[in-house]
Amino acid sequence: MTRTVQTPRPSRFGDLFDMLTDRGRALLRWRDGAGRVTAPPGLPQMAELLLSRRGEASGVALARALVTAFEEADEAKRLEFLLALADRFGPDPGAVGQALAAIQAQPGSVEAIEALHTAAEPRRQELFRRLNLAPGGTAALVRMREELLGHLRDNPGLRRVDSDFAHLFASWFNRGFLVLRHIDWNTPAAILEKIIRYEAVHAIRNWDDLRGRLQPTDRRCYGFFHPQLVDEPLIFVEVALTRAMPDTVAPLLDLDRTPIDADRAGTAVFYSISNTQRGLAGVSFGNFLIKQVVEELKSELPNIRTFVTLSPVPGFAAWLAQAREGGDMLDDELRAALKPLDQPGWHVDPDAAQALREPLLTAAAVYFLRARDAKGRAVDPVARFHLGNGACLERLNFGGDVSANGLKQSHGLMVNYLYDPGRIEANHEAFAERTEIAASDAVRRHLPALTPKEKP
Amino acid sequence: MTRTVQTPRPSRFGDLFDMLTDRGRALLRWRDGAGRVTAPPGLPQMAELLLSRRGEASGVALARALVTAFEEADEAKRLEFLLALADRFGPDPGAVGQALAAIQAQPGSVEAIEALHTAAEPRRQELFRRLNLAPGGTAALVRMREELLGHLRDNPGLRRVDSDFAHLFASWFNRGFLVLRHIDWNTPAAILEKIIRYEAVHAIRNWDDLRGRLQPTDRRCYGFFHPQLVDEPLIFVEVALTRAMPDTVAPLLDLDRTPIDADRAGTAVFYSISNTQRGLAGVSFGNFLIKQVVEELKSELPNIRTFVTLSPVPGFAAWLAQAREGGDMLDDELRAALKPLDQPGWHVDPDAAQALREPLLTAAAVYFLRARDAKGRAVDPVARFHLGNGACLERLNFGGDVSANGLKQSHGLMVNYLYDPGRIEANHEAFAERTEIAASDAVRRHLPALTPKEKP
Amino acid sequence: MTRTVQTPRPSRFGDLFDMLTDRGRALLRWRDGAGRVTAPPGLPQMAELLLSRRGEASGVALARALVTAFEEADEAKRLEFLLALADRFGPDPGAVGQALAAIQAQPGSVEAIEALHTAAEPRRQELFRRLNLAPGGTAALVRMREELLGHLRDNPGLRRVDSDFAHLFASWFNRGFLVLRHIDWNTPAAILEKIIRYEAVHAIRNWDDLRGRLQPTDRRCYGFFHPQLVDEPLIFVEVALTRAMPDTVAPLLDLDRTPIDADRAGTAVFYSISNTQRGLAGVSFGNFLIKQVVEELKSELPNIRTFVTLSPVPGFAAWLAQAREGGDMLDDELRAALKPLDQPGWHVDPDAAQALREPLLTAAAVYFLRARDAKGRAVDPVARFHLGNGACLERLNFGGDVSANGLKQSHGLMVNYLYDPGRIEANHEAFAERTEIAASDAVRRHLPALTPKEKP
Amino acid sequence: MTRTVQTPRPSRFGDLFDMLTDRGRALLRWRDGAGRVTAPPGLPQMAELLLSRRGEASGVALARALVTAFEEADEAKRLEFLLALADRFGPDPGAVGQALAAIQAQPGSVEAIEALHTAAEPRRQELFRRLNLAPGGTAALVRMREELLGHLRDNPGLRRVDSDFAHLFASWFNRGFLVLRHIDWNTPAAILEKIIRYEAVHAIRNWDDLRGRLQPTDRRCYGFFHPQLVDEPLIFVEVALTRAMPDTVAPLLDLDRTPIDADRAGTAVFYSISNTQRGLAGVSFGNFLIKQVVEELKSELPNIRTFVTLSPVPGFAAWLAQAREGGDMLDDELRAALKPLDQPGWHVDPDAAQALREPLLTAAAVYFLRARDAKGRAVDPVARFHLGNGACLERLNFGGDVSANGLKQSHGLMVNYLYDPGRIEANHEAFAERTEIAASDAVRRHLPALTPKEKP
Repeated sequence: MTRTVQTPRPSRFGDLFDMLTDRGRALLRWRDGAGRVTAPPGLPQMAELLLSRRGEASGVALARALVTAFEEADEAKRLEFLLALADRFGPDPGAVGQALAAIQAQPGSVEAIEALHTAAEPRRQELFRRLNLAPGGTAALVRMREELLGHLRDNPGLRRVDSDFAHLFASWFNRGFLVLRHIDWNTPAAILEKIIRYEAVHAIRNWDDLRGRLQPTDRRCYGFFHPQLVDEPLIFVEVALTRAMPDTVAPLLDLDRTPIDADRAGTAVFYSISNTQRGLAGVSFGNFLIKQVVEELKSELPNIRTFVTLSPVPGFAAWLAQAREGGDMLDDELRAALKPLDQPGWHVDPDAAQALREPLLTAAAVYFLRARDAKGRAVDPVARFHLGNGACLERLNFGGDVSANGLKQSHGLMVNYLYDPGRIEANHEAFAERTEIAASDAVRRHLPALTPKEKP
Repeated sequence: MTRTVQTPRPSRFGDLFDMLTDRGRALLRWRDGAGRVTAPPGLPQMAELLLSRRGEASGVALARALVTAFEEADEAKRLEFLLALADRFGPDPGAVGQALAAIQAQPGSVEAIEALHTAAEPRRQELFRRLNLAPGGTAALVRMREELLGHLRDNPGLRRVDSDFAHLFASWFNRGFLVLRHIDWNTPAAILEKIIRYEAVHAIRNWDDLRGRLQPTDRRCYGFFHPQLVDEPLIFVEVALTRAMPDTVAPLLDLDRTPIDADRAGTAVFYSISNTQRGLAGVSFGNFLIKQVVEELKSELPNIRTFVTLSPVPGFAAWLAQAREGGDMLDDELRAALKPLDQPGWHVDPDAAQALREPLLTAAAVYFLRARDAKGRAVDPVARFHLGNGACLERLNFGGDVSANGLKQSHGLMVNYLYDPGRIEANHEAFAERTEIAASDAVRRHLPALTPKEKP
Repeated sequence: MTRTVQTPRPSRFGDLFDMLTDRGRALLRWRDGAGRVTAPPGLPQMAELLLSRRGEASGVALARALVTAFEEADEAKRLEFLLALADRFGPDPGAVGQALAAIQAQPGSVEAIEALHTAAEPRRQELFRRLNLAPGGTAALVRMREELLGHLRDNPGLRRVDSDFAHLFASWFNRGFLVLRHIDWNTPAAILEKIIRYEAVHAIRNWDDLRGRLQPTDRRCYGFFHPQLVDEPLIFVEVALTRAMPDTVAPLLDLDRTPIDADRAGTAVFYSISNTQRGLAGVSFGNFLIKQVVEELKSELPNIRTFVTLSPVPGFAAWLAQAREGGDMLDDELRAALKPLDQPGWHVDPDAAQALREPLLTAAAVYFLRARDAKGRAVDPVARFHLGNGACLERLNFGGDVSANGLKQSHGLMVNYLYDPGRIEANHEAFAERTEIAASDAVRRHLPALTPKEKP
Repeated sequence: MTRTVQTPRPSRFGDLFDMLTDRGRALLRWRDGAGRVTAPPGLPQMAELLLSRRGEASGVALARALVTAFEEADEAKRLEFLLALADRFGPDPGAVGQALAAIQAQPGSVEAIEALHTAAEPRRQELFRRLNLAPGGTAALVRMREELLGHLRDNPGLRRVDSDFAHLFASWFNRGFLVLRHIDWNTPAAILEKIIRYEAVHAIRNWDDLRGRLQPTDRRCYGFFHPQLVDEPLIFVEVALTRAMPDTVAPLLDLDRTPIDADRAGTAVFYSISNTQRGLAGVSFGNFLIKQVVEELKSELPNIRTFVTLSPVPGFAAWLAQAREGGDMLDDELRAALKPLDQPGWHVDPDAAQALREPLLTAAAVYFLRARDAKGRAVDPVARFHLGNGACLERLNFGGDVSANGLKQSHGLMVNYLYDPGRIEANHEAFAERTEIAASDAVRRHLPALTPKEKP
């Protein structure tokens, strides 16, 4: 016979916590079994509590308490919690054992396999879903993973926690939930200061510099936002509207240039694209962002027919240094012609620069079209991103960025990737399946003929 | 040696589709291998395409095409697609086989179990995530599941598709992503007409009736919304602010009553709570909604100290009919006393009503506190909801709803459930773990003494 | 020597009122000279107080008190106040006398004339400006004038108060301060119910009828709003997008019709335009509204080339009755031909209707093009509005509205006025300066030849 | 007989202008009488056109054309137009003559006086109302007056144009039409950069400085906005929430200070209040702004009981220099004691500063409480503002601002004005009617006894 209880009644066992309300903010006061106020439990215990029955009734309050406790704990305690996630919040061994037994009993049963899938879900996935109940929970989880990423090298066991984060974030930050927003000079300062902080390609020096990228008629900036992270762009792209495809970056960033009417522009240049949340590493936004911005611009400004990037080549100088040492990527003649690179200040010496132009472009063509890394991929990370999106390597720009950084990473080389909506899929497929690199004739022309032994 | 390709170039294999743009809306034109325009493929083929490499490059367009094709297909084709989801988009057998072998090689390895979890994920989960890329994709998936639910009885194999929907929706519609919004007379009509349509407890007859529930100073309505479903409340609750706990519903719904100042109210009555999306069945919102509305009201109107429902008892009349037939729930004396229930119009005959009051309340106490269904649960579904949330059964109201429907389902009985923030967890835990039912003394007093044989 | 006062100190004279704060709402407590709490003064005294020094310091509180007291007073007291405005709040006689003397001293001095202008401003203008400080003050003033208009006939002295209202409202409700808003099915219900209430041309029966005018793809509705009257459209126009210029209204209002794609429409039909605020009588919005809506539609839907109304002819039947009695507008032949109009139900008798068509259109042409009222203006008020806006009378539609009301006011006649942006100014100027009426050839063709004596 | 015209028809007289549409922007093409395209007319002719019949039909386009032409004209042409406003757009002499004759015919007739008021309205008032039809017209008129103010000294005839601007702006920018907005770190950058630019009291050096005034929990900023000037605060006030009334400004502006919880503050300090629009000179906002902010803060933070300023004393040093020269404001003893003021750097010499404290505070008390300017008003402009609002001079702060500017304008003196809601009206009335200055005992204690000859 079930029993009925009278309410209110004193708790027989003492509650583990009471909810207190202080100016609309729920707090928890922890009690021991005898009802005495006590210190809060450790983070792993709180996580167990959140996964328990009690977590069902008081999920929001408990989730908030755990999030707060984690963020206020010192670094050692936080790492301890992350390690506990790896060790103690994996799949439930009992449930997995039963599911495996069922499979052995019915080999090939789809039901059994699907039951196993459910049984083998690490408990931390449900924990993360419950932590998300806390106000600000999504942002807190993203920060938690950011912290975890910093410990990965020394604690490879955390990798399995990371992959649960990655799985969940891929679902929560699905493109279908993101909102594209125009970022301009009417955007709240709280967001704009993040644009300044997160710009990863061409640093924004100050607010005047920022205004120069947002306010002129021939500049645009777009970002993806998630409804739960209102002040945080997840990724943003800066766009210049120009008459022709640019080959150097300095004029684009010049605050004193004269803007053109947006109606007069024929080309949109994606000159900077920056991810902002390290905690969302591996969730891919850039691909969708560029394509949606292309749609936006085509609809707003039908005169724009060409969509290109002006991109850095961050891996070129390092690769070239090695290739000049040895290997069969470059031949001796080219190696000799590249000698002047070692002379400091060559880029301000017109003769030296002129002499280097062709050899460097040839080397660059090799770098993009022939070189592969240990995994067989294109060497340049920016190239992998744009080619993987279905863009095509359109032009190599000698002296495109002669800032100190530009010289250091790529001997001043910049490139344009072209987004041609009609070719994007074919390029993507060829790149992904057959490692074929889409490149214009103009680029391929720089490629030296293959020596007999290189021929496939 | 990898190859480079020149862009643009004619496709060697013929593209399966082109993207067309018609007034900003991407369309697909399907082609066969020879490049000839052709009819679009079937829904399952489109789903395979969306899961393929090509889906990576053109996910948004393909997802939209599949969503549109599904919604425009006839019912038979749609069912065929749902069955294909069950049969052909389960876990990848090869990957599962490898993962199982790895487990046998390393019994007890957590890595192996977690790898198995990943391998055993049904392919339709990724398919649903990709479908969500389509504009309106989330809503389309919710509708797709709603349709699927209608086929479950005749096609039990769909149950596994349903559980993937349920898993995904529980993650996407996590409370952390929902927004509580006040619904009032300034709310857009497009939302208000859905309130009229979805109200499940006390039907809203027309717009005047609706205004009477939203505009007066002593009425409130709140709903949860998801950022992707802007015009669709997921669940909403209607609240009356009153001086005391009400025992009948008619005065609450009377359009001619005189409203009171919200400041003068001491009690908030949740007199109607309605879920709206059949496609989100099993994703629990009501619990969170009531608790958050309690917080909102406490902060806006500190004079309100009592939070109760005025609830129907939908299972009572059916249960009572059976109990009067036989079984040991009611004794003979009570059965005799309940006879006048069979006399039509008893509720308008003061003597008959008076004679029935006590017997009916006694039977109701048995119904709530002793009766259990085949699964051992409280019989009444509304009771299960509120008691499961941690509320307490506070009062039984004889003649609370003497409308035709009220008489039919519960002989006019209504009840109040009390949400006492300080008791919610204990009540929930007792109910969930030990099937204990929280009830006030006033309710328990109606319970007949147990006969010797019933004593535990 | 000026004196300094110490603060706080007891008031020497007793304050006339204290400000109290009750839940954020300022109240006034009135005191007599001895500081005793007393009844509030009469409305005119409060108005004097608001115009005094004290009104400078406590304008907001006093304005609110006066607005509230006016609205809570009974009708007699309110009329008394309006009459006091006329009698006691006109120009300051002393200031006017001085200004007149200055003009006599310096005849023709522009300075003296401008000083006189200032001196002769009725004091109620400043009173109205100060009343506007009250929360909701603008709306209260509009209601106050609405009430005043109802008393004008019996109290012609109020006319001068009315003209001050009109002057002020023309300035405050200047087109430059109005906001055009699209009204659709996402508009708040609080605004939509006003659309239902204020529709003056083709009554909206219920919310379904309203939805039929807002939601279909080929319907639009626009209104002007003032920032201070957020829930109140000042004027709104309902628009149907059609393939061709319509000649009857019933198909436009039919809830069962099949909407067309907005992109397919070539014509925009303004089929109803309604002012909402009687208190803003004489402030002209309609002219601006139609022209701005034309701009909006041209920009949104470039396929739309024709902008017309489908308008009632409210003065036609009354004028025709008189013209059939006597006078020289109609000749005997026409009078005879119009006889069947007296036969009830002629419009459902095809022969009778056919016989009446030409005579009625001829009479209508005379009505529009030759008839004038006592002031020499076009007789029809709707015609005066559209022709005054620069529209042209494009077509006469026999049997355009055979509802009871349509038959009664115009024997079923409706007309189209054409807004041709290229002709609007010339039409307006010809109409305003030379009473020339812009009409199409098709309309003029119905006009009978002038008899010799009529020739100019 | 009136004539009818057929539409379309060629204009008989040649239109003065055509409307062209270029990407949604109406342009005008001017034509001469023969229909030939010609140069646009001068600004005064355009103004006459706007006031004509044609202006009724094409007000928006003509207003825009005139606004644009004015802003694109050179300075000489613009001044010429302003002078034409003064000379040629005053009252209509004919109408005034008639109205004067009517008054002589009926001396004392209120109707006649009110008719005269109307007749004597300068024509430029209607011109300004029509200019306001242009998109951005309100802002353009405010700029036009700002320019006019710069010419007033050399062209005193413009004063009458200015008074028409002032009259109109007082009506349009009536407090009832202004919106109070919280300005914080989520405010659009386009508004924030204006806060930086317009801050008139304590300059904001850069965006970090701005953030320090907006983002901390114990800082607030509020501004009044007009619906037509969305990006332009009209006036704003910066507020610090503190435990006690501050006596020096440097700690308030220190970016490194530790903020306190807003809940812990008992005092709100208005430390800077800035008007932004020179073109709105004479339209008073500050009074209303401070009072409404007091209401806002009282409602948000009930712990705040004290509302004070920390204000500069901009007229003190200049007045003191004169008073030390001669006159009877200071006696010889005080003059002698003030000598060390002439020693540069006295404020960093503790002994000198200590010696000066009392004499300077005595002189300051005389400055505030006894000194009057030529018009009999308090000398200090900031004092006139706050005392006129009904505040009380609460405290004199020796060394409150020892910046170079603070020393120069007031020998480092700052003061607190107290806004005590219960005393505001009495203070205002005493100040406005009897020049009584509300001051605390603490301030009055510094006042030297009156010498016999000074006694009233």
